[in-house]
Amino acid sequence: MKNFVFHNPTKVIFGPHTVEQIGPETRSLGGKALLVYGRASAKHSGLYQRTVTALSQHGVEVVEHGGVSPNPVLHHVREGIGVAKAAKVEVVVALGGGSVLDTAKAIRAGALVEHDVWKFFTGKQGIKRVLPLTCIPTLAGAGSEMNSGMVLTNSDTRQKFGIGNKLLYPNVSILDPETTYSVPPDHTAYGAADAILHLLEFYFTTRETFTPVQDHFIEGLVSSLMNCGERALAAPRDYEARAGLLWGAALALCGLSAAGLGRVGFPMHMIEHSLSALYDVPHGAGLTVIAPAWMIIQAAKKPAKFARLAERVFACDPALPDAEKARIGIAQLRDWFSRMGCPVNLETLGIPAADLPLIAENAQGLARLWRLHDYDQASIMAILQRCRHSQPGEWP
Amino acid sequence: MKNFVFHNPTKVIFGPHTVEQIGPETRSLGGKALLVYGRASAKHSGLYQRTVTALSQHGVEVVEHGGVSPNPVLHHVREGIGVAKAAKVEVVVALGGGSVLDTAKAIRAGALVEHDVWKFFTGKQGIKRVLPLTCIPTLAGAGSEMNSGMVLTNSDTRQKFGIGNKLLYPNVSILDPETTYSVPPDHTAYGAADAILHLLEFYFTTRETFTPVQDHFIEGLVSSLMNCGERALAAPRDYEARAGLLWGAALALCGLSAAGLGRVGFPMHMIEHSLSALYDVPHGAGLTVIAPAWMIIQAAKKPAKFARLAERVFACDPALPDAEKARIGIAQLRDWFSRMGCPVNLETLGIPAADLPLIAENAQGLARLWRLHDYDQASIMAILQRCRHSQPGEWP
Repeated sequence: MKNFVFHNPTKVIFGPHTVEQIGPETRSLGGKALLVYGRASAKHSGLYQRTVTALSQHGVEVVEHGGVSPNPVLHHVREGIGVAKAAKVEVVVALGGGSVLDTAKAIRAGALVEHDVWKFFTGKQGIKRVLPLTCIPTLAGAGSEMNSGMVLTNSDTRQKFGIGNKLLYPNVSILDPETTYSVPPDHTAYGAADAILHLLEFYFTTRETFTPVQDHFIEGLVSSLMNCGERALAAPRDYEARAGLLWGAALALCGLSAAGLGRVGFPMHMIEHSLSALYDVPHGAGLTVIAPAWMIIQAAKKPAKFARLAERVFACDPALPDAEKARIGIAQLRDWFSRMGCPVNLETLGIPAADLPLIAENAQGLARLWRLHDYDQASIMAILQRCRHSQPGEWP
Repeated sequence: MKNFVFHNPTKVIFGPHTVEQIGPETRSLGGKALLVYGRASAKHSGLYQRTVTALSQHGVEVVEHGGVSPNPVLHHVREGIGVAKAAKVEVVVALGGGSVLDTAKAIRAGALVEHDVWKFFTGKQGIKRVLPLTCIPTLAGAGSEMNSGMVLTNSDTRQKFGIGNKLLYPNVSILDPETTYSVPPDHTAYGAADAILHLLEFYFTTRETFTPVQDHFIEGLVSSLMNCGERALAAPRDYEARAGLLWGAALALCGLSAAGLGRVGFPMHMIEHSLSALYDVPHGAGLTVIAPAWMIIQAAKKPAKFARLAERVFACDPALPDAEKARIGIAQLRDWFSRMGCPVNLETLGIPAADLPLIAENAQGLARLWRLHDYDQASIMAILQRCRHSQPGEWP
């Protein structure tokens, strides 16, 4: 096990009928709030009104910044920073999915500096202080509600970059599984896949070889997320399934799964970010296309950990050779993505084969930022080639 | 899944050669520290000197309160509170096992009030504020380094009571697995057993029936702790084993394993506390005697969860009936305790059969405090009868 520091100060309030606690929790952090939210869904569901009412009842003055899009974009964050500065807000409240939470995080950091917020993402400036943040996540997946990361897309430069900073943990996150009942099947599946692939990035990229605590933690969460994901698709108002997804996705990326694993990479997310940046595909949908191809190539080099996953999560016969177990495990995971309604090839995403070099080139921008030096044009192209058009159930 | 609040603000610094960080971390919390430690071992190992030097080099003035005993006692805590008050310390530093950490927690709370500290333990007073606390745990087991609990023995009343309060989380805990190399085999095993039984108290006493996130988390940690415990006995300086034990034991009781399980009890610990209070037996050793007997009686009523543990942790054939799986799992766990050198009957602890009614009577004091209303004289006696003298490998 490698050295690490684990310090996650987020207060998680979990359960049905907890949304109204946004009032007192936010009030304890400031009297004037910027409320960040998305497009129509929070207003349709009544959640927007419940949040505003709870804030008002506790004496929190609310300034609004709605309209966050999936794959949140820089120019909209800049607008939010302008609003926050003009109104001199003391706290930020995020109501929505990962895109809303990440927008709120960028605003909480950007509102306290004079330079452009994108400099945080390119590493040209460091985050020194932030406004407090309270969150009501309405989608299980990104895990932003309990972690120190944020991801943003710069449409001008076509870069989707993610960074982490210990100041970015939300102060309070209110996780009410009932708020996720209205998430449609596709985004329920994408969210579950995103959380599963957060875990598997760590699992497959660590160089440590004896990490039973982390391995069991990850395998257990992957199994739980798959189980709850299936149940939530079958019955969208299954409280236990929604609860398992919401808590499981938060735990998947809260720092625990990677603690002690040393230097880990996010190569599947790295390539996916280029798909989202160039074609605005949903993050989870891009991931389920990229992940199996990446895994096949990795497993050919180091099958042992893939074999372990196949045994632990897919009940694969331990007596088989590692390479065979690895193949079975990856195929089962890909079939599961497919059964959940996620795309498993670039064709389904409508991305033409002629664009592959462009995607590979774009991905290298993030490879440099994240220091994934093994990923050059050729190696990224090799991964992309394998996810072009093989069908569900067919080996890519 | 039941409603919960999870908020663990402890900063964990993990790895070899991290002990010296006690200097700057403590200095950031105060300039005058009470250093709480045990008897000889920290001085023999050089750890005491490293700690004092690191504190001095960062300008922290040190006042000492050494001599904490296993099963820490009230009168020694009262002395420490006297020292802390007289010296007007600003921060408490704990160097030692769970007994030292719990003593330090009681002092950090007791130093800021005028009433007797025992009133916190009997519920007659609530904790409102505490001194900051930094810790260097030197034994894997109790988990006090990352949680909000503390346990103390009142020798006058022969009560060993434990309480929790959200203000009791340490501010910083420095977990250096190398500091546990010198823990002798018996206490290494007792610590592993203690951590495993923290997890299993939650696992077996929850009334929730669909909790895949928590079940996988607990099963994975139990497996890891068993694996690492065996390795540490075989090779006391096996870094990976010591690291897995230290991190696994901290995670076992940091709040995550119980989050969402609703009302859970600590009945095995409850009865063990009476053994420690009356006979001063090591906590882990008392637990390995009590636990199998408690489990046998519980499994007779509700075998399903015991059967699940047997499948997941002991690779028990899923096709067997639940009652049979439960029996196999409990027997395997008891045999494991025994192989690790832990006692599995009261006779080995030197406790005479004639004392059983006295133990059962004592345990009811804590049963009332912890609201374990099912545990009366008869039901506790039934458990104690089953752990009298059956041998390792023999069904009690």
